Amino acid sequence: MALLTGPLPRVPLPQAAGPGGRFKEPPSVVALGGGHGLSASLAALRLLTTELTAVVAVADDGGSSGRLRRELGVLPPGDLRMALAALCDDTEWGRTWRDVMQHRFKSAEHTEASLDNHALGNLLIVTLWELLGNPVAGLQWAGALLGARGQVLPMATVPLTIEGDVLTETAEGRLRTETITGQSKLAEAGRNCHVNDVRLIPADAPACGEALEAIELADWVALGPGSWYTSVLPHLMLPQLRDALCATTARRVLTMNLATDTKETSGMTAADHLDVILRYAPGMRLDFVLADPGAVGDRERFERSAAGLGAQVVFGKVGTLGGQPVHDPLRLAAAYHGIFGGSEESPKE
Amino acid sequence: MALLTGPLPRVPLPQAAGPGGRFKEPPSVVALGGGHGLSASLAALRLLTTELTAVVAVADDGGSSGRLRRELGVLPPGDLRMALAALCDDTEWGRTWRDVMQHRFKSAEHTEASLDNHALGNLLIVTLWELLGNPVAGLQWAGALLGARGQVLPMATVPLTIEGDVLTETAEGRLRTETITGQSKLAEAGRNCHVNDVRLIPADAPACGEALEAIELADWVALGPGSWYTSVLPHLMLPQLRDALCATTARRVLTMNLATDTKETSGMTAADHLDVILRYAPGMRLDFVLADPGAVGDRERFERSAAGLGAQVVFGKVGTLGGQPVHDPLRLAAAYHGIFGGSEESPKE
Repeated sequence: MALLTGPLPRVPLPQAAGPGGRFKEPPSVVALGGGHGLSASLAALRLLTTELTAVVAVADDGGSSGRLRRELGVLPPGDLRMALAALCDDTEWGRTWRDVMQHRFKSAEHTEASLDNHALGNLLIVTLWELLGNPVAGLQWAGALLGARGQVLPMATVPLTIEGDVLTETAEGRLRTETITGQSKLAEAGRNCHVNDVRLIPADAPACGEALEAIELADWVALGPGSWYTSVLPHLMLPQLRDALCATTARRVLTMNLATDTKETSGMTAADHLDVILRYAPGMRLDFVLADPGAVGDRERFERSAAGLGAQVVFGKVGTLGGQPVHDPLRLAAAYHGIFGGSEESPKE
Repeated sequence: MALLTGPLPRVPLPQAAGPGGRFKEPPSVVALGGGHGLSASLAALRLLTTELTAVVAVADDGGSSGRLRRELGVLPPGDLRMALAALCDDTEWGRTWRDVMQHRFKSAEHTEASLDNHALGNLLIVTLWELLGNPVAGLQWAGALLGARGQVLPMATVPLTIEGDVLTETAEGRLRTETITGQSKLAEAGRNCHVNDVRLIPADAPACGEALEAIELADWVALGPGSWYTSVLPHLMLPQLRDALCATTARRVLTMNLATDTKETSGMTAADHLDVILRYAPGMRLDFVLADPGAVGDRERFERSAAGLGAQVVFGKVGTLGGQPVHDPLRLAAAYHGIFGGSEESPKE
């Protein structure tokens, strides 16, 4: 099959279905992250705009994605699949193919190499990659199948590996530094020790060109929520991507997690999360930090850390009503709407 | 996800793209078979009509299909996938998703349980089955993805097993009967011995209701080409399906294989193939037997066997130009067109 050349057949995009009418035209938004956190921001942002680009971390090495990555040498497709699913067209067609993409095989056998627990969408995306020889074109076709509003891009077109130095305590009570390689091991390691330094391998992989372009042309860049070290920070560790995020004229909003003390970030406060951002991207200024008041302990310290990034803190109840540490799409959309709308009153310099 | 209720979103079907204009409206055709043979007849028939139903044997137990059948307890999807692929819309959209469906994973590992050699389309069809809980609805959705013209149905909605008695020669030169269970083993066994009797397990599985209805309402029923014992005869061994084929007012055309002396049918002539049909469906009358002259040795004996089935023999060069025993879609379409068109001059009783 030839490489994709002509325009893709696409379901016509509806106009932004947001609560507003405040925008003359929908803002162009780039959302960066990975996993469930990115799905949450996309589920909210799709209510506000059709000009939506998801930029997805590609350092995952666990589960179905990790097995495909090792077995076939491809990008880990799982977080890309989840982002596509979050953007599916809200019709019987879109929802059906979303459910197909998200479906996982549960076979009687439970061997590492069996179908068990592979998401069909991961296999479909990998098939498109193998056929088209182009990660971005493959994701465009998967998006066209779902009638996805917006586009989903990998942060880089080669798989990345996260490596981290963690501080552990020896039996004798002394601290020692250990290097952990791989996102899934690192996410687990944080449970019992302090993640001290994180880096990407290769350190200077080229970022996805389409992602750089989208960031350059965006009205808004939305970073987070998501696993801080493995879904959020990688976007700031890739030099080309960090530079683009620093250089864009887009306004920047960082959305905090609802649970800060996770297995990956044990012992860290919300302010610590901001300080880590500053450490990995000292040149980047933020416009807004969106946080649920319930997830911020010491507000004063948090606002001080936000100010260090140039950001105004916006507090909003954005968690689900049930109290689970999960963002509610409508509440999150309302918060973004307030932030985006507010920007009209204080236009970009 | 709810069961499929409303009408499916479908790519509008083009009018028959055949060489004709002889039909006032396209004839309704049901093609029965399995594997590559059915793909060949569908590739030809799609050029003549949009009112096309494929009825596919579901006794396969080899390869990717066999593994899915054993691991997940589903119908073997492979022949259904191939039939869908043969009917895909002839656009960039249809051809791309056809190529996706037909793509096979080639992993570095070669264990039985790995992804290796699974066709993505098999996994996609199985996913639709698991989600929708209905084999026919799942195939409709897969057909809608491909913009398939016509529909693809399984002959039964439960997996079937083929069992056969074969005559083998012992070391002492005596003949003995051995029972072989399973399509893939039986297809191999025919290489060295004579297949004596073939049956389905369960013997009285209900046929797919939609297939029975399509046969009842058809203008034409086209059986073969295909592996005689494992793709063609199963349709005559399932009582409900055989009764429907005998009872329909549709005209019946049987298309012979180009190679008669295959591993499954070693030593059998074209006439022997017809005699086997008569043996398994003594009550069925055929209108036409379409054969390539190069595949029929003793024409007189062949025509006598055809007459025993009530059929007129139509000889036509329907193989590819290269001389491989593969049907050429355009030549086969031209032959069917002649047969279908001829029927207008001698209208159905």
